[in-house]
Formats: sequence, structure tokens, C-alpha cells
Amino acid sequence: MAEKPEFHSIVGVFPCQVQWGDCDPAGIIFYPTYFRWMDAATWAFMESVGYAPKRMRSEQRSMPLVAADCQFLFPAEQGDRCEVRSRIARFGGKSFVVAHEVVRGDGSTLAKGSETRVWARHAGGPGSPIKGETISDELKTLFRAR
Amino acid sequence: MAEKPEFHSIVGVFPCQVQWGDCDPAGIIFYPTYFRWMDAATWAFMESVGYAPKRMRSEQRSMPLVAADCQFLFPAEQGDRCEVRSRIARFGGKSFVVAHEVVRGDGSTLAKGSETRVWARHAGGPGSPIKGETISDELKTLFRAR
Amino acid sequence: MAEKPEFHSIVGVFPCQVQWGDCDPAGIIFYPTYFRWMDAATWAFMESVGYAPKRMRSEQRSMPLVAADCQFLFPAEQGDRCEVRSRIARFGGKSFVVAHEVVRGDGSTLAKGSETRVWARHAGGPGSPIKGETISDELKTLFRAR
Amino acid sequence: MAEKPEFHSIVGVFPCQVQWGDCDPAGIIFYPTYFRWMDAATWAFMESVGYAPKRMRSEQRSMPLVAADCQFLFPAEQGDRCEVRSRIARFGGKSFVVAHEVVRGDGSTLAKGSETRVWARHAGGPGSPIKGETISDELKTLFRAR
Repeated sequence: MAEKPEFHSIVGVFPCQVQWGDCDPAGIIFYPTYFRWMDAATWAFMESVGYAPKRMRSEQRSMPLVAADCQFLFPAEQGDRCEVRSRIARFGGKSFVVAHEVVRGDGSTLAKGSETRVWARHAGGPGSPIKGETISDELKTLFRAR
Repeated sequence: MAEKPEFHSIVGVFPCQVQWGDCDPAGIIFYPTYFRWMDAATWAFMESVGYAPKRMRSEQRSMPLVAADCQFLFPAEQGDRCEVRSRIARFGGKSFVVAHEVVRGDGSTLAKGSETRVWARHAGGPGSPIKGETISDELKTLFRAR
Repeated sequence: MAEKPEFHSIVGVFPCQVQWGDCDPAGIIFYPTYFRWMDAATWAFMESVGYAPKRMRSEQRSMPLVAADCQFLFPAEQGDRCEVRSRIARFGGKSFVVAHEVVRGDGSTLAKGSETRVWARHAGGPGSPIKGETISDELKTLFRAR
Repeated sequence: MAEKPEFHSIVGVFPCQVQWGDCDPAGIIFYPTYFRWMDAATWAFMESVGYAPKRMRSEQRSMPLVAADCQFLFPAEQGDRCEVRSRIARFGGKSFVVAHEVVRGDGSTLAKGSETRVWARHAGGPGSPIKGETISDELKTLFRAR
């Protein structure tokens, strides 16, 4: 039986650089830094399809996480220029999975990870509890590669 | 002419420990860590006089910063157990200065810093702009050493 | 066929608290914070069996990561007191898996994660490249629950 | 009596952006982020005159801090694109002061700070204690505006 094809996604690109303070006494990147980058990359990816932080705020939206994981393939050092390449791996009803690759300037893939997030809103205004919302076809279309 | 005596403050104590990820490739604490500690110490100091995070949230309060500074006297290493000792150095009309000392378990003072903060509220409810509020005598009294 | 039993591990406990700066504009914990905690918890777990940071440094040891993952079950807020409960899920030849649970003071499990790490050394002295080392039976025994 | 003129410095520019995880529950930048930026800006400033991280590492150099301070003039929000403009405010014998301004894309100055650092080396090779070194005229010249 054929596997359900995954979502054919556009690819977002988030440039970043390993800073002194992102590294640990072993002289390489402290691994939670990769998750900080993946988070920022997802926000930039949303912005690239029209959901900039300002719009997200005015619509009381957020994207809480259900899960995150990362494989660390190659250590990064201070000064390394990288980019996070992000794509939608899967859309669920109210959740979605973003797959990320961290690629260094020389083409080496340093890390591969994913985030599972809920598409959510503070339904009762600022400060109210967040609730998941059904992901519309319009939103999915924005991420579909042509 | 005599200098106006500074506020005679109680002292808050916030325990903390230097973690692997708080250190940089030189093997010592990455300095913004001290400011993270000072921020957490101020929140703990507020809690010690009755302003726990939950109350601060329910009263829509926050404590935005006007300035912060720190002198680094002695390097800290991973594993070092410290405490931040905080006191009110000065109360202004709507602002206050918290003086902090970071002291290691062996008694060495590692750092001395201060934060100047505004006593503020989201006056129009959650998400509304914050405004400074006059610091009441009741609040000042809570911090006064007897 | 019976599944190979996992390692029967002691449990390490690392206390922590959600700070203001650990939270994001949604008012809940920023997820990379969990990974910072898991990292610190692993170091504390090692210390509990005799491998304190000072010893790790003097023996030129480090514990680079191969992978990390986390499920976020329940949001944490500023002020929440938690503990990370860590155990060895598996010992490989030169690698090991630490399973972590983040449990709030009221008993709620907030997050479950794991780290896959290599037991490594800077074989040629400080600054030299790190290499994985075979995990000795002595080391495994230190983590075995009786 | 005339004040000794300060060093007439070139200006380094370090671009940065406020990320979701750099902000706190008040929805504005968590202040230690500014110090993370200032640190990264100093490293970039050093790189701009020929002292890239790789060279700093190979020469066993580091730049430990003596003091840091910052005034916060205007709050920054997620998505704000900024740059840190850095210049040498003063060269001492073995120490130097870097003055930083954080300027948002619309020209607003968000923060002004400074770092006092020592020009230092691990004189005995990797892992050895660091010692301050006299700042050479050659190094000063690299930062002098023409």
C-alpha cells in the first residue's frame, strides 16, 4: 500500500551565525541554540507567507509546541555562518510539523530537526487561554510548492 | 552637606548555580548570565515581600528596566554554587534601584550590579501599554529593614 | 520474543524553576528552556555518581550530543517549581541515552524528553579534538539501581 | 583644563533581529538579550579589523569583561530589525571600552551600553589561565578612524 505523500512544501531560509555565547566550554555550539534557531526559523517561515509577528500579535495567534527533536550531525564553532532551511513536513487538523535543516556556509548539514506545533489563538482576547484552530486550506496553500 | 541616606533595605537571597550552558569557550561564565540571574533575583525578591509572579500577573504588573550594570570581579566556573543578594538601593517616585551581589559558596563576591526599574502596570488590561505607577509607602515599607 | 530489558537505572533529581526570562510573549515557558534544563540535569546526574564538573574538566571529558527530543505535555508558567528526573535509558558502546521527565511541584508531568550522548574525551589534552570512549562496566554500575 | 580626547574610532555594525524567544511575557525584549547582542557585536567588530574568531582561537586570545552597562531607552518587540553600532570609547594599557548603540531600522535608538574588557591570552596554551596583555599600537591603529 502506498504511503500517503507528505506535503510538498516551499522552503524557508533563515540565516544565522554561531556566536561566542552560543558555545560551551567544549568550544562548540551549546545544543539548545539549535532549538532557538529552529523556533526563530519557524517564525520567519510564517512571515514569508504573510504572517509576520505583528499580524500574529494583532490576531492573537500563537504556535505552541507539542514536540521537538533534533539530530546533531556535525559540531558548529563560533563564527560559523549557517542557514536553517524549513519546510512543512505535514499538516494535521489543528497541528503541523515543520522540518528543519541547519546547513553551514560550506554546504555541510550540521543538524536536522523538527517541531510539531498547534495553530492556536487566544480566543477570548489578550491574556485568555489559547485554543487550537483548524488549519484552513487557504493557509495550507500558502506553503504549497508549485 | 550630608548625603541623603540610602534606603535601609532588607536583603533577598536567590540561590543559583553555574551550568555548562552558562559558560563560554573560555570555560567561564558568559556574562549575560549574570543579568539573567539578577532579573530572576529581583522577581524572587518581590515574591519574598508578597508579590509572587501569580499576583504580579493578576494585577497586570511588570517592572521594565531603565538601566542595568554589572562589574565582574572574579570568574565563575561550571558547578559553582552562588547566591544573588539583592536589596533596594533607592526608591524614586515611580522607579527603584535594586543592587545585587553575586556571592559564591566560598564567600567570594563574583559580581556586583544594579538594575533601575519602573514600577508599572498594563493600565488598560492585558496587552495594553504599560505605565509607571507611583510607588506607595506600603510597598516601600515591605522592603524596609527593621 | 521478549524485548531486551532497558537499563535499570537510578533516578537523578535536578530542581529548577521557571523564570520570567524563560517565558515568551505567550506567557509560558519558551521551549528551548526545557533542553537547557535537560542538559543541566544530565551534568547533575553525572555529579551524583562522582563525575562532578571539576573532575570532568580535569579528565578532559565531555558529553557531546547525537540527538535530543522532547514532548511538551503541559505549559509551565513563571514561578513554577519543577524538577527534572533523569535516568539512563540505555548504554551503548560509546554512547548513552538519558531519559528526562520534567515534573511540576503539584505532580504534573510537563515534559518528557531524551538525550543521546557520546562519552568522550579530548584525548590529546585541552583544545584537542574529542573522541568517543568505550563506556566501562564500572561507569555503568554507578548508574545501576539496586 | 581640557579633557583628554576620547579615541576617535571606526564604527562596527552588527545586524540583529528581535526573536520570539528573546522576548518576555510583557511582550518586549528580555533585557539580557541586549548584552548577548553587545557581546556578539564586539566579536564582529574585532573580526572587521582582522581578528576573526578562528584567529582569536589559534592565538589563544579572549576578551574577559571587567564591567558592562546598558540604558534601555525604548522597548523592542519581536520582529524588530536592529543593528548594534560599536566603537572603541577608550584604550587603556591592557583594557579597552567598547561603546554600543542599538538602533532599530526606523532610526530609533533603543539602547546604549558599554563593555569594559581585558585584552587577554591563555599564555600557557589551551586550558591555561588567561592573562592580560598590553594593547599594541598596531592594534589601536586598526580601530582608528581616518
